[in-house]
Amino acid sequence: MGLGTTSAYDVFALPLPERSLISRIGVASANRPTAGSLKAGRLPRTSRVVTGIGDDCAVLRVPTGHELLVTTDFSLEGVHFRREWHPPESIGHRCLVRGLSDIAAMGGEPIAAFLSLALPRKLPQRWVDRFMKGLLELARQFGVTLAGGDTAQSPTGILADIVVLGSVPKSKAVLRSGARPGDRIYVTGALGGSAAVLNLLFSRRKKLPPKRFPAHFFPVPRVQQGRALRAKGMASSMIDISDGLSTDLNHICEESGVGAEIWADAIPRASVGRPPKPVELDLALHGGDDYELLFTVRPGLRVPSQISGVPITCIGKITRRKQVSLISKAGARSRLEPSGWEHFRHQ
Amino acid sequence: MGLGTTSAYDVFALPLPERSLISRIGVASANRPTAGSLKAGRLPRTSRVVTGIGDDCAVLRVPTGHELLVTTDFSLEGVHFRREWHPPESIGHRCLVRGLSDIAAMGGEPIAAFLSLALPRKLPQRWVDRFMKGLLELARQFGVTLAGGDTAQSPTGILADIVVLGSVPKSKAVLRSGARPGDRIYVTGALGGSAAVLNLLFSRRKKLPPKRFPAHFFPVPRVQQGRALRAKGMASSMIDISDGLSTDLNHICEESGVGAEIWADAIPRASVGRPPKPVELDLALHGGDDYELLFTVRPGLRVPSQISGVPITCIGKITRRKQVSLISKAGARSRLEPSGWEHFRHQ
Repeated sequence: MGLGTTSAYDVFALPLPERSLISRIGVASANRPTAGSLKAGRLPRTSRVVTGIGDDCAVLRVPTGHELLVTTDFSLEGVHFRREWHPPESIGHRCLVRGLSDIAAMGGEPIAAFLSLALPRKLPQRWVDRFMKGLLELARQFGVTLAGGDTAQSPTGILADIVVLGSVPKSKAVLRSGARPGDRIYVTGALGGSAAVLNLLFSRRKKLPPKRFPAHFFPVPRVQQGRALRAKGMASSMIDISDGLSTDLNHICEESGVGAEIWADAIPRASVGRPPKPVELDLALHGGDDYELLFTVRPGLRVPSQISGVPITCIGKITRRKQVSLISKAGARSRLEPSGWEHFRHQ
Repeated sequence: MGLGTTSAYDVFALPLPERSLISRIGVASANRPTAGSLKAGRLPRTSRVVTGIGDDCAVLRVPTGHELLVTTDFSLEGVHFRREWHPPESIGHRCLVRGLSDIAAMGGEPIAAFLSLALPRKLPQRWVDRFMKGLLELARQFGVTLAGGDTAQSPTGILADIVVLGSVPKSKAVLRSGARPGDRIYVTGALGGSAAVLNLLFSRRKKLPPKRFPAHFFPVPRVQQGRALRAKGMASSMIDISDGLSTDLNHICEESGVGAEIWADAIPRASVGRPPKPVELDLALHGGDDYELLFTVRPGLRVPSQISGVPITCIGKITRRKQVSLISKAGARSRLEPSGWEHFRHQ
């Protein structure tokens, strides 16, 4: 008699036996990266995974002269997504984006992902298939192998935890702590789009067509941009905007022991809706979930206006004074408090 | 206005702000490995973690000539533990054991752990502290650095996902697929102890003194034994017994394309209770959660009777015929069905 057959643990009547779910995930992830994701002379990512799903551990090879990057992120129903608003493909996509974006923020190259997935008893298999489809399509785009994970029955709600491993040339990871007074502050893309869509979801309390609102449902992690900024030695510090510009800029300032001023007028705001309208400044400042990169550059270095089609915008500068300020169009200075997404917030 | 302040996501009134939980975990994990865990000439494990908690990713160094091992395991309230039966230290300990045991089963060396922890709104901080204490004490014993993770509020129940990274000399990981007909089958330690304690918990429906039942509350992962077996080139295949002997032996047989026969009389059974009594054969065969190692050895190789104080016992042999059989003391043969722990069981 195993643990699985004793009463308190006997809660495992589920869509699929664990092993067939694992093998299904395994089969799905065996897809090779698309030709487009492989650059000449680069080791195919799949050959870095020596043993994937089906043993006690996955076995991976880190390229010679490289360090390993590791990031883990929860995606919990009711916290990070809602089943009634987010199609399963979007949830799977967004689950992996969180990890890829962290790798991008170090200037790294993603190698493999590990998915721990706990599912409620009555979830249709179709939901799992669509979730995996969303996750694996993004994985394929970025040449990432799904190399393992864990499955369990969830007491309530869908619980996913994604681990992404990446690599970066030794001592070249771009940290949050490298900003210095005088550095310019840049962002990729445009901000506030995802939060604006979330506001629409809340106010209308119904589904939105996901393809019309990709900033929220299918954000693109800035892996190529992060890698290029690191390879060119351009970024002195970097972070991805997952919690909101105000919060993430504060992380950089705290870790670097500096302050910053941000020019309200310069912040690129996302456009949302039909016809597209730029989002409110507040959303661009504090809306999380954008997955754009925020980085600093030493003064005098020339920064391209776009990288791989994504605009790069200067929005402020790092200061010696340890405070983060917002400068209005008229020149008024106000303190920019971190007020983006933070779990475990005291109320 | 960030995602954290919009209503459906605004569920974050919790014991501690996320960042202070992270920094508390960070401080706690900064403890160096004890002198005893460092062998002469081996790189201190902490120096393999270049950047830990506090950036987008952790940065790790994998020793030259080594491959990386990765394993992830859920520990979910009501599935893997019960708050009313398991003290927080035991839950933290067992959470990490699951990962360390997987590293042991590859013959690897653990390097770092990553903890994703979602906690219900009203959980006392004291619970979290005691959970972390149990986890970090075990980490320290094995020279493992807690290098990152994620935190969130859980809709219900405590949800933990542990990732353990390890290393193993290139191409030397001991897989499940290496067993060949004629190989002898061995186990470390004794089986069924954890499941017997679980039975006691179910039948008495009250707490048991954890220190008197360490097999269940504080199992020891067989890292030293797994490493020694790999280093001596002794194990042709290996797995840890987390799901029960019958299930885990089946994994080895399936992955190796072989069968096995197990001698009922030879199986070392744990002793539980006061006075200690050997557990029923059924528990030794199918009870999961033992975290002993199950491995195979080519015929003719001499296997020590113990490694680092843990007994090693021969319990059967690998057969060409693809069936797993149990041979009774009287010589009767019966089919040994895998009936240990399996999530997602059809009922």
